[in-house]
Amino acid sequence: MSITETVFSERLSKESILKQFNKIRKFTNYLVEPLETEDFVIQPMENASPAKWHLAHTSWFFETFVLGKFQPGFESLHPQYAYFFNSYYLQTGMPFTRAKRGLLSRPTVKEVFEYRAYVNEQMEAFITKCSEEIWQEAASVIEIGNHHEQQHQELILTDLKYLLAQNPLLPVYRNANAIKSEAVAALNWISFEEGLVEIGNKGNEFTYDNEHPHHRTFVQDFELADRLITSGEYLEFMEAGGYEESPFWLDEGWSTVQKEGWKAPLYWFKRDGEWMQFTLSGARPIDLNEPVTHISYFEADAFARWKGCRLPTEQEWEYACGDIEIEGNFVDNDHFHPTAASKKEKLKQMYGDTWEWTMSSYSPYPNYKPLPGALGEYNGKFMANQYVLRGGSCATSKSHIRKTYRNFFHADARWQFSGIRLAR
Amino acid sequence: MSITETVFSERLSKESILKQFNKIRKFTNYLVEPLETEDFVIQPMENASPAKWHLAHTSWFFETFVLGKFQPGFESLHPQYAYFFNSYYLQTGMPFTRAKRGLLSRPTVKEVFEYRAYVNEQMEAFITKCSEEIWQEAASVIEIGNHHEQQHQELILTDLKYLLAQNPLLPVYRNANAIKSEAVAALNWISFEEGLVEIGNKGNEFTYDNEHPHHRTFVQDFELADRLITSGEYLEFMEAGGYEESPFWLDEGWSTVQKEGWKAPLYWFKRDGEWMQFTLSGARPIDLNEPVTHISYFEADAFARWKGCRLPTEQEWEYACGDIEIEGNFVDNDHFHPTAASKKEKLKQMYGDTWEWTMSSYSPYPNYKPLPGALGEYNGKFMANQYVLRGGSCATSKSHIRKTYRNFFHADARWQFSGIRLAR
Amino acid sequence: MSITETVFSERLSKESILKQFNKIRKFTNYLVEPLETEDFVIQPMENASPAKWHLAHTSWFFETFVLGKFQPGFESLHPQYAYFFNSYYLQTGMPFTRAKRGLLSRPTVKEVFEYRAYVNEQMEAFITKCSEEIWQEAASVIEIGNHHEQQHQELILTDLKYLLAQNPLLPVYRNANAIKSEAVAALNWISFEEGLVEIGNKGNEFTYDNEHPHHRTFVQDFELADRLITSGEYLEFMEAGGYEESPFWLDEGWSTVQKEGWKAPLYWFKRDGEWMQFTLSGARPIDLNEPVTHISYFEADAFARWKGCRLPTEQEWEYACGDIEIEGNFVDNDHFHPTAASKKEKLKQMYGDTWEWTMSSYSPYPNYKPLPGALGEYNGKFMANQYVLRGGSCATSKSHIRKTYRNFFHADARWQFSGIRLAR
Amino acid sequence: MSITETVFSERLSKESILKQFNKIRKFTNYLVEPLETEDFVIQPMENASPAKWHLAHTSWFFETFVLGKFQPGFESLHPQYAYFFNSYYLQTGMPFTRAKRGLLSRPTVKEVFEYRAYVNEQMEAFITKCSEEIWQEAASVIEIGNHHEQQHQELILTDLKYLLAQNPLLPVYRNANAIKSEAVAALNWISFEEGLVEIGNKGNEFTYDNEHPHHRTFVQDFELADRLITSGEYLEFMEAGGYEESPFWLDEGWSTVQKEGWKAPLYWFKRDGEWMQFTLSGARPIDLNEPVTHISYFEADAFARWKGCRLPTEQEWEYACGDIEIEGNFVDNDHFHPTAASKKEKLKQMYGDTWEWTMSSYSPYPNYKPLPGALGEYNGKFMANQYVLRGGSCATSKSHIRKTYRNFFHADARWQFSGIRLAR
Repeated sequence: MSITETVFSERLSKESILKQFNKIRKFTNYLVEPLETEDFVIQPMENASPAKWHLAHTSWFFETFVLGKFQPGFESLHPQYAYFFNSYYLQTGMPFTRAKRGLLSRPTVKEVFEYRAYVNEQMEAFITKCSEEIWQEAASVIEIGNHHEQQHQELILTDLKYLLAQNPLLPVYRNANAIKSEAVAALNWISFEEGLVEIGNKGNEFTYDNEHPHHRTFVQDFELADRLITSGEYLEFMEAGGYEESPFWLDEGWSTVQKEGWKAPLYWFKRDGEWMQFTLSGARPIDLNEPVTHISYFEADAFARWKGCRLPTEQEWEYACGDIEIEGNFVDNDHFHPTAASKKEKLKQMYGDTWEWTMSSYSPYPNYKPLPGALGEYNGKFMANQYVLRGGSCATSKSHIRKTYRNFFHADARWQFSGIRLAR
Repeated sequence: MSITETVFSERLSKESILKQFNKIRKFTNYLVEPLETEDFVIQPMENASPAKWHLAHTSWFFETFVLGKFQPGFESLHPQYAYFFNSYYLQTGMPFTRAKRGLLSRPTVKEVFEYRAYVNEQMEAFITKCSEEIWQEAASVIEIGNHHEQQHQELILTDLKYLLAQNPLLPVYRNANAIKSEAVAALNWISFEEGLVEIGNKGNEFTYDNEHPHHRTFVQDFELADRLITSGEYLEFMEAGGYEESPFWLDEGWSTVQKEGWKAPLYWFKRDGEWMQFTLSGARPIDLNEPVTHISYFEADAFARWKGCRLPTEQEWEYACGDIEIEGNFVDNDHFHPTAASKKEKLKQMYGDTWEWTMSSYSPYPNYKPLPGALGEYNGKFMANQYVLRGGSCATSKSHIRKTYRNFFHADARWQFSGIRLAR
Repeated sequence: MSITETVFSERLSKESILKQFNKIRKFTNYLVEPLETEDFVIQPMENASPAKWHLAHTSWFFETFVLGKFQPGFESLHPQYAYFFNSYYLQTGMPFTRAKRGLLSRPTVKEVFEYRAYVNEQMEAFITKCSEEIWQEAASVIEIGNHHEQQHQELILTDLKYLLAQNPLLPVYRNANAIKSEAVAALNWISFEEGLVEIGNKGNEFTYDNEHPHHRTFVQDFELADRLITSGEYLEFMEAGGYEESPFWLDEGWSTVQKEGWKAPLYWFKRDGEWMQFTLSGARPIDLNEPVTHISYFEADAFARWKGCRLPTEQEWEYACGDIEIEGNFVDNDHFHPTAASKKEKLKQMYGDTWEWTMSSYSPYPNYKPLPGALGEYNGKFMANQYVLRGGSCATSKSHIRKTYRNFFHADARWQFSGIRLAR
Repeated sequence: MSITETVFSERLSKESILKQFNKIRKFTNYLVEPLETEDFVIQPMENASPAKWHLAHTSWFFETFVLGKFQPGFESLHPQYAYFFNSYYLQTGMPFTRAKRGLLSRPTVKEVFEYRAYVNEQMEAFITKCSEEIWQEAASVIEIGNHHEQQHQELILTDLKYLLAQNPLLPVYRNANAIKSEAVAALNWISFEEGLVEIGNKGNEFTYDNEHPHHRTFVQDFELADRLITSGEYLEFMEAGGYEESPFWLDEGWSTVQKEGWKAPLYWFKRDGEWMQFTLSGARPIDLNEPVTHISYFEADAFARWKGCRLPTEQEWEYACGDIEIEGNFVDNDHFHPTAASKKEKLKQMYGDTWEWTMSSYSPYPNYKPLPGALGEYNGKFMANQYVLRGGSCATSKSHIRKTYRNFFHADARWQFSGIRLAR
């Protein structure tokens, strides 16, 4: 069932949407509380936008797609912001070049917060006062805006981590609550039988267009690892010469390793002969029991081959996920780093901790239709040369993830909390 | 059924293999007959190797994987050639950098032909004289070498075309036999019903590892266009502003269009207001009835969306292909350019004319196993960020193509004879 | 007479040096008063460092070359700053990569001001209390540090201008006091006769090593323009096709024009058909009487050839300068932009307004010796592929400039206040 | 006295010019005799053109500036060649991009030789038959063309050497006549006194515009080394850590060393622990007595500083040269490599062996005027960011060099036979 056909329901009531809006907008503010003004400004690489930009862009979304469309007589606080904080929506006008987001010292952080407050106020008034007729159109757009902001919350954290890691002072974002890791159990394999399985979303929950249409596909027999690969297991790969020339790398993976000089996951470094990692709580030694994270598709794939295994397809992952309850180490935990697998469940860490690379190239489901208008640029136009990741991470909101959720990044991306689950 | 399990059969008899070897080796020589010495030397871009290199590399393959392995006491004509003419086989030693193949004025073309003659002579002696026991191991490797050389025959033509097109003299490779094109019929749609279908190869013919294992997959209802898109239809897309900013492009497609300044298919240019194209028989006006060719995946995809359609998946293509006889406009025709669709068959041009972009990212079939040893680098390690093309082209040998054959190139590649068949 | 031989004099008394130190340090703070915190952080191109970096680097100079060397038991406020804020002094340790100065959100601006205050306090104590013996060594190093900070004051303004100009909001740095420009008189030529002239410094004032040794050189007959070229005169060059292919450009100049897409001086842009320029007081129309500024050596040279003239050599400039009083439009005027030539003097605008490109490549004077130790890296190692500019600009302190002062930039640099004086 | 004012004399008689023309054109053919067809085609870097291009470009010069201008009814053998083989003369039409000279497999080498023969024939007829009036205009242009071809003869050798050096087969160009090197004497210093000296050309010989006007300049006391620096002396610099971070490098020199990974002169490499060099006669061990060659300005400058010396200015070099006879190791010797200094003369190796880097940036002499028309692009427009070299090399014709001759290359150029003479 596609978004535009969504039954108008409790989920999309004014009360429910406004509550969600307020909660998510506040959580964004909570996430940036520890930042210095200077931390909001810098773009440390093309893919890592300044926090200031995220704060403004998510507000721009509501201004452009809700207030500008459904609120007669709406006036923007500053019309030029629409140019600055647009991201990629060609149909709403040419955006300010992505690579230059870090060249803008103005508007200042203070002005961006004023912009957010203005949009909040206008949105609250709009939601409260608009007619039921308009609401039927606007509600699902606001809901998309809410989930859109949750995506950017995750990017605020990963982009900030990338920025702080450039700084030899290795600044601490937040001293996370300590979690003492215990030795994880040996990896077990869970078996699944071949058959026609159902993929994609048909429920009443919020979904993106790329999770549709719900359809059938045929899956062969396969086995899935019961937990994520740990830093300890990954270290074995490194020590076995994993980053040296070897038959385990994809051709493009190997040329990336050489060009970038990769020797370890992103944020790992050696101090006095010991492997350390930079986390959002500062530098600390590698914990062998924690899931390895900040690795590219290329590294995940090479590790899997070295182990004589492979990565799962996204269909296998979704099928295997079944009805597992959505719980795990999310951003809600205030930990901002993956944690070691527990000993309880059968299939562990399917949600939270790290996004799990699948071997599936990101492509449309059969008979996929993008949303009409500019929102159709949201997901569809990225369906080339990216790979699907599943399950969310320690930087994802629990309320944002679901079994059918499809995240996607390029095969060389490492700055997300991405990790490995094996299949065979 | 995998190659290593192939029943030792008529197909792999000494007589059959030697005959095939001689025929293919001669055909390579036929293809380069019209070349000047200077044409053999230049590498006009990283992906387009000098003809000289192709001549030598295909010989090196036999030397390394057959003579060097199975012929006791074999002596190379010039041991350093193994370094020059290796392509990507990490397991056989570090090759001479691909990007520098055009920096080698020596060995000369004459020396390369001497090298070919030497390898031919040694191979013929080996095939004739080796024991049956050795033959059981060697036969399928030689067969791979034969098909490998056929692939490079196609590259010799496409790389040469790219080279000649750089030259304002627009040199003619061969004046092809003229084919007078008639108006093609309007495009028709052929319907296929959903169901579990069989994909991959299980026959007794020669196959590559990437066509295995034979397996089942589920395909939805779909329709396939009965012929390739013509230059005339593509010109409509161009004239409708297809190369301007539009919602039809993938995000990476659009940035490639801008970066490369694409305005038309590769080899199209305007002379006195008229669209011309460079062909292996020199420059000539666009023929509106011929299939459009030398377009990237990005262009094929944008065209399809503009038409309200899409590209087929490789599974749909293979399923639709059914038992169609392998005939069409191949390199055997000596025409070196696609020709207009005939009026006879139901599903036209599935083989020959142009490779057909599918929307399928190139990835392993379920339970795929690469060949053991260095030959395992042949296909498997390229399974990232490439797209599958099907059906062969006017530069492919008829004896080289089959229904399950999977070719693959990057989404921005345009120098192959690649074209468009729509699905919906 | 070289710096190290400077007679120990009134100029280098404790009182005099401390007064100069305090005045210059305060003036730096004055210059950055209007900046928002965000303006201090960004590095808009490799050559334009963040204001924060300039503030800290000038303090680091005193810490490293004065306090660290002459003050027993000196403790740095934060030892790692020495790594961040070093610029190019190889002999004092590997500096933080220049291109990454914009990646540091910490130390914060507030912390950098604390660092400045700490250094000020320590310096004041040191100057007051050190023995006369130590003072004899330290005094001239502090004096270099003072002049070094004046150079960075100019860079703070030019780097900031470059940053603000990236921002479509075109922010105002300071609303400068208005100067109403009157029509400038036609350009006149002043004649000078050939002969052996004295070049370089031999006075008692402060000088850099590159102004030494004082020596003789032979100058031919020449004429020098009595004022700088105006924006109006430069506009004629533009309108005559100056930026199109022409015999007036140096070969490297022309390829730079093409590569960079130059069509006008830096900061010029068209709005509604009218030429505007971005200034530190915001955008405003071109003033035809003002000296043209923000042009490269290549543009200055092409303009001169178009006029049938040339640029002066630095020896001609210095010789022509004679005993002209040092007065003009300096940063002390709080105008931050060049102004039209007055009508009074014979040779106008030799000091202030814009730096004047000479045709002299920056190279050592005969028998030049750099300062011993790390300070020797100050000027000498840049003596390749740069051109000498003379006379100071509207961003230079009046107390910083002198007749023998040699500034130098690459031929394609445009972000300084650089302009044109013709010779023939 | 400038070229255009040259007294019409014996030097410019028809007999003399034709004899020179024939001799030089033949010598070009002699130089390329050992080349395989393949060696003529490749452009191994942007600055190293294919030999084929040099052969054609020098012919194009005569066709364009002599036959096309002075021979009524002249018909080009192939008008499109004028586009291909133009180099940089903007005023004669946009040339084929320099970087793409290696993409042209046609015209073939055979066709280029036919083109040369055609131009020779036409030139001989023109010279023999043209009126005296036309001759007075044409003679000096032909003379420029002759010297222009001599310059390209040197480039044919240096570009070819660069090409062959890319090839791991290390092909031999010509087995040069062996010269057994004896130990060179310790370096001596020759003193020169300060004074006004005369620089530039005023004689009756052929000269380029950049050697004019003859003028006076003032030179300080200096000393010049009596011979070139040897490979042995340079090796000491290397072994003393010369290529490591050090105060001896210019800032741009050091960044070039790092970016390019320089560890030794171009063409030096280690085999089994021994330093070897690639020469036009193949690879051979370093000869410690030979002059070091194939080094950049940056390396020459760093070496000089390490020795506590400097490079000479071009004025010092020319003044010191005095009336020394022009003799030395030129291309006429058929040795194609520098040789050890003899023991006889006072000032040795001023001519031949290697070009000598001076510390002088290439700039116009006072009152310099380029030739009128397209020939004015010959020298003048390169007067930025290049350094002057003096004295010719083992690849220069003896009849081409003179005391006032100014060669120029960028500071990072290494593929010419460039070496070091010290001054202080």
